[in-house]
Amino acid sequence: MKVVLVGSGNVATHIALALKAAEIAVVQVWSKQTQNAKTLADQIQADVLTNLSEIDQQADFCIVSIKDDAITSITKELIGFKGVVVHTSGAVNLDVFETYFEKYGVLYPLQTFSIKKEVDFTSVPICIEANQEKTLQSIRQLAEKLSRNVIEVDSDKRKILHLAAVFACNFTNHLYVLSSDLLANYDLDFEMIRPLILETAAKVQHALPRAVQTGPAIRNDEQTLKKHEELLLKQPQLLNIYQTLSKSIKKTKK
Amino acid sequence: MKVVLVGSGNVATHIALALKAAEIAVVQVWSKQTQNAKTLADQIQADVLTNLSEIDQQADFCIVSIKDDAITSITKELIGFKGVVVHTSGAVNLDVFETYFEKYGVLYPLQTFSIKKEVDFTSVPICIEANQEKTLQSIRQLAEKLSRNVIEVDSDKRKILHLAAVFACNFTNHLYVLSSDLLANYDLDFEMIRPLILETAAKVQHALPRAVQTGPAIRNDEQTLKKHEELLLKQPQLLNIYQTLSKSIKKTKK
Repeated sequence: MKVVLVGSGNVATHIALALKAAEIAVVQVWSKQTQNAKTLADQIQADVLTNLSEIDQQADFCIVSIKDDAITSITKELIGFKGVVVHTSGAVNLDVFETYFEKYGVLYPLQTFSIKKEVDFTSVPICIEANQEKTLQSIRQLAEKLSRNVIEVDSDKRKILHLAAVFACNFTNHLYVLSSDLLANYDLDFEMIRPLILETAAKVQHALPRAVQTGPAIRNDEQTLKKHEELLLKQPQLLNIYQTLSKSIKKTKK
Repeated sequence: MKVVLVGSGNVATHIALALKAAEIAVVQVWSKQTQNAKTLADQIQADVLTNLSEIDQQADFCIVSIKDDAITSITKELIGFKGVVVHTSGAVNLDVFETYFEKYGVLYPLQTFSIKKEVDFTSVPICIEANQEKTLQSIRQLAEKLSRNVIEVDSDKRKILHLAAVFACNFTNHLYVLSSDLLANYDLDFEMIRPLILETAAKVQHALPRAVQTGPAIRNDEQTLKKHEELLLKQPQLLNIYQTLSKSIKKTKK
């Protein structure tokens, strides 16, 4: 199995490392920034692809892992590729490839990746989709070498997963940011709240979040809610977030 | 060292188990619901205290771990107790005990507890405070038997910690709830998003959350933000949360 990788960002890098760990050959790496392609290619003993028209026509897969709005323009340059072309985006439709390729699909790893932090890819849910059954089987074969958690998900459901991930990951991390800012304002160390953050995530690994909701809003503890609002009087935007989320928590109780 | 425990909820239960693990004798347990007191007392081989006026006067500590707004009324019934009285609340001032006792303080474990889920108490940050230095030393001695992470924090800072914990824990769990509701509406399994939730919390254990923020809002990916808003058009309250938090993320970038 031979793979060409288009992209060198967080997702592309983690996929490259997972492919290497699975002993799948990445033969070429392309990036808009050739230097980034070189850095990644060096890590996985691949060649740098400088011109997309020179893609290895013997490759079985081309994995396009770049910004959503660049997929169409970059893809055009791959016309003629005979292998399977997949993108790795949560939000982009399968049919973005329709007019350009015969065999195409999606391989969307539902996880948050940072260049510097290792991830156990074998437990990352991978959502796959394809334009035909045979291609889906090829993509499944590839995905199952990377993870034991491969699920077929159509474009509409994948978009919902992506949106749900924004709530569970991006918005959650932002709450950590707001929390750390609050602490910093009072010379309190973010370290103090780290065990709480980890436990909050650990609790829902076996329970449903609704069953483990705690805090003043779910208890209807109006006295504490009022005290907290008073502490936030000078930060109207933070107060707005506090009130919006508290109201939403109360609503789920009904 | 002998301890009387007033309360039988989540926090009281986990403190009781941590005391037992540290081989500190809990001699009596009181609860508004005597049956709950009995259940907890049985687990830690303590007696049930049915009438607060019969508190063991030989005890070194009385730990009051009940609802914030019940602390004053319950405390009154303990007048005359000669040991150290502490509460475990993040939001209640130290001086709630002022008119009733000689030696008093706070022992606030900064963690989220559920009755059913075990917690490694030895790593839970415990915030302590007292009305006098000698009492503070006694409380520190007790707290350090429960955790290796004991910090002196005054009432004002403790309130900020409690508020920061609402953002990092209660609000975060609510985002998990919203995420799971979204998935359920489209017959998608919450299981698919659990690894993402855990990794999001794991990422900030060594980094600051601001440094690892990802998602469409921080990338100013207007196309994806717009697509997500369209998916939420029929859920105005969820849309409001989406827009409020996305706006707040963009603001942190400036």
